[in-house]
Amino acid sequence: MSKKEIVRRHDGNFHWEGVDVLAYKQEGSAPFKDVTRQVLFEPEGLPAQLRYFEVAPGGHTTLERHEHVHSVMVIRGRGRCLVGDKAWELEANDLVSVPPMTWHQFRASADAPLGFLCLVSADRDRPQLPEAAEAERLARPLKK
Amino acid sequence: MSKKEIVRRHDGNFHWEGVDVLAYKQEGSAPFKDVTRQVLFEPEGLPAQLRYFEVAPGGHTTLERHEHVHSVMVIRGRGRCLVGDKAWELEANDLVSVPPMTWHQFRASADAPLGFLCLVSADRDRPQLPEAAEAERLARPLKK
Repeated sequence: MSKKEIVRRHDGNFHWEGVDVLAYKQEGSAPFKDVTRQVLFEPEGLPAQLRYFEVAPGGHTTLERHEHVHSVMVIRGRGRCLVGDKAWELEANDLVSVPPMTWHQFRASADAPLGFLCLVSADRDRPQLPEAAEAERLARPLKK
Repeated sequence: MSKKEIVRRHDGNFHWEGVDVLAYKQEGSAPFKDVTRQVLFEPEGLPAQLRYFEVAPGGHTTLERHEHVHSVMVIRGRGRCLVGDKAWELEANDLVSVPPMTWHQFRASADAPLGFLCLVSADRDRPQLPEAAEAERLARPLKK
């Protein structure tokens, strides 16, 4: 089954017919922990992708920034996000908008995954990563 | 609160901070029943919208077709969809791709709403509606 199928069923555990579970990023390209990626839609005639990311309990995405924006909707579990210099608690169906060139990171809670949809441009710039000391300072709001 | 807020919380009942509940279409413009529309994201730099539609129990969207495609993910309740000459049962997290110029309609079940995300181009053509007799023929797969 391919992305051209009209209906692709959910299997009850956040996998879908014809949708591959991919590595979040290339191994070693950036620091992250326990994240998978699935591309749900790449619509014909629209330069956009809708992806599903799942961060396992205790895991986190890369702390990064870039020009392209993220439009995020949590659909599973709970956790926290850092956007700029603030952190927020997240639960199912909460919406997050990450503005251009704003440091951000998503973290699952210790005892539940964090699964979210992320709408992005199909054509996007490469993420920037902070230096290690800078990363520690930037992530401070997540530790409060 | 506006769509520029970084985090917009879900209220537990498929409404969100700063997101207005809109009429699905202009009254009398097309046949439909018990549908609301909310625009969740109109991302900066991306000619796309992510909307949330909710069809009340027993309700349905307009039977129509157009050049722009729909990328749909069910997030609440259950129902059925017609796409082309086939009908499918739908449950939470199922994915539906409506190809260009393909007749389609979404119906909630009698005893539950059908709530779904719909990703579309921000710039889209006007839907075409069938004649009444044609509509009856087209909707036949939904009645099986």
